[in-house]
Amino acid sequence: MALFLIGIGLNDEKDITLKGLALVKKADAVYLENYTSLLQVPLAALEELYGKKIMLADRTFVEKKGDALVKEARLENIAFLVIGDVFGATTHTDLYQRALKANVPVEIVHNASILTAVGKTGLELYKFGKTTSIPYTDGSWEVETPYQVLKENLAQGLHTLLLLDIQADKQRFMTIAEAIRYLLALAEKKQDTVFSPKTKCAGVARMGSTTELIIAGSAEVLMKKEFGKPPHALIVPGKLHFMEEEMLEHWAQKHL
Amino acid sequence: MALFLIGIGLNDEKDITLKGLALVKKADAVYLENYTSLLQVPLAALEELYGKKIMLADRTFVEKKGDALVKEARLENIAFLVIGDVFGATTHTDLYQRALKANVPVEIVHNASILTAVGKTGLELYKFGKTTSIPYTDGSWEVETPYQVLKENLAQGLHTLLLLDIQADKQRFMTIAEAIRYLLALAEKKQDTVFSPKTKCAGVARMGSTTELIIAGSAEVLMKKEFGKPPHALIVPGKLHFMEEEMLEHWAQKHL
Repeated sequence: MALFLIGIGLNDEKDITLKGLALVKKADAVYLENYTSLLQVPLAALEELYGKKIMLADRTFVEKKGDALVKEARLENIAFLVIGDVFGATTHTDLYQRALKANVPVEIVHNASILTAVGKTGLELYKFGKTTSIPYTDGSWEVETPYQVLKENLAQGLHTLLLLDIQADKQRFMTIAEAIRYLLALAEKKQDTVFSPKTKCAGVARMGSTTELIIAGSAEVLMKKEFGKPPHALIVPGKLHFMEEEMLEHWAQKHL
Repeated sequence: MALFLIGIGLNDEKDITLKGLALVKKADAVYLENYTSLLQVPLAALEELYGKKIMLADRTFVEKKGDALVKEARLENIAFLVIGDVFGATTHTDLYQRALKANVPVEIVHNASILTAVGKTGLELYKFGKTTSIPYTDGSWEVETPYQVLKENLAQGLHTLLLLDIQADKQRFMTIAEAIRYLLALAEKKQDTVFSPKTKCAGVARMGSTTELIIAGSAEVLMKKEFGKPPHALIVPGKLHFMEEEMLEHWAQKHL
């Protein structure tokens, strides 16, 4: 018996790989992690195609029941599905590590991730620096890390992918406009040149889905665009190769 | 009619997604890019499962026939398969861009990439800096970029993924030992502390395959390990969280 950690890709039930699907079919119980990312289709679509009942695993479940899950995987085949790729979030590495420690066999099935899907913008994946995420803080404290990461990446001429907060339990998802407002507020406070209304950006929504949207433009322009349903992410490009520039121009022109 | 750019994942014919497979089946002609990465199974395995004849596209083909391919996609459905994810290499972005310019519809199917599969080492994907690759130079010139990238990433406490040269046409693939020798030679020349025989590294081979190998250890230890068939990649971790440290310890102990 084993634990199957299976990435199911970015959009719908058909983004699973043949290998992943074969393992789901072999599983005695199937869980879907649904708090670090967001399913673009109803759960029923997955259940129908996979031919399995799927149990939703929220943050509390994964953090508190991790060991129980691993224990279960000694006696039965347990499939744990992750939207995107398996190692996009620390909690899944934690689950993997628990299984290794407990000597429970694990099979990993990789899949597409937002970290590489953003290559569609035309920005070279090799030239992305550290990835960062902007959390909702509700004004109670000010998190400066994403701004700091952006600053350091830009100093090296690197692109920055800013992932935006997903609070699935509260059905609360940060928008590109909110992310830009956050960066502008920090720029205002710090009085530096890291980010301004004129900063070229690319906003991406629902990457890998049929309603995917990529728009390039200055921060002030992107703030006014309607990106629709979550998840959203914001990219601030560093030094651009002319091919990258042309692609951003394409994504700017397309949504004037 | 359209151009389908389809990532087929890291290992074998079963790493394609259901969506990717459906498009391959709809295609009138199927090409497989085979010079930026390396198929782990015979081409026939893909052809059998996909039910299609597959034409191999080497570097010259893609660079010289890109426009012809796009033209073809006006009249027929053309599937262009890429090992790993679609946007792992600049040439594929170039092909995508040519199709956009020519107003030929394009469908992209994302898949797993070495850039995210390395998450299995336990190193946090968000904490990777710029990615770099070490080319064979055959002593004719000395490329310092990878060393420079490593230096800058380390200064920020970030992990570095070093991809190693793949010269598929010459059946020549850089090994982890060769990559370490390259870094040690540059360290010797520069007399700095960026890389030494004691530097902690992780070597990975054939990520995502059934013969995948991950070994952690100092550079001098890894140089003596047998990683087997290509492709290989080398990771030099930056500042480690204790969970990351534990995982590297796991990959060190496993192959003492």
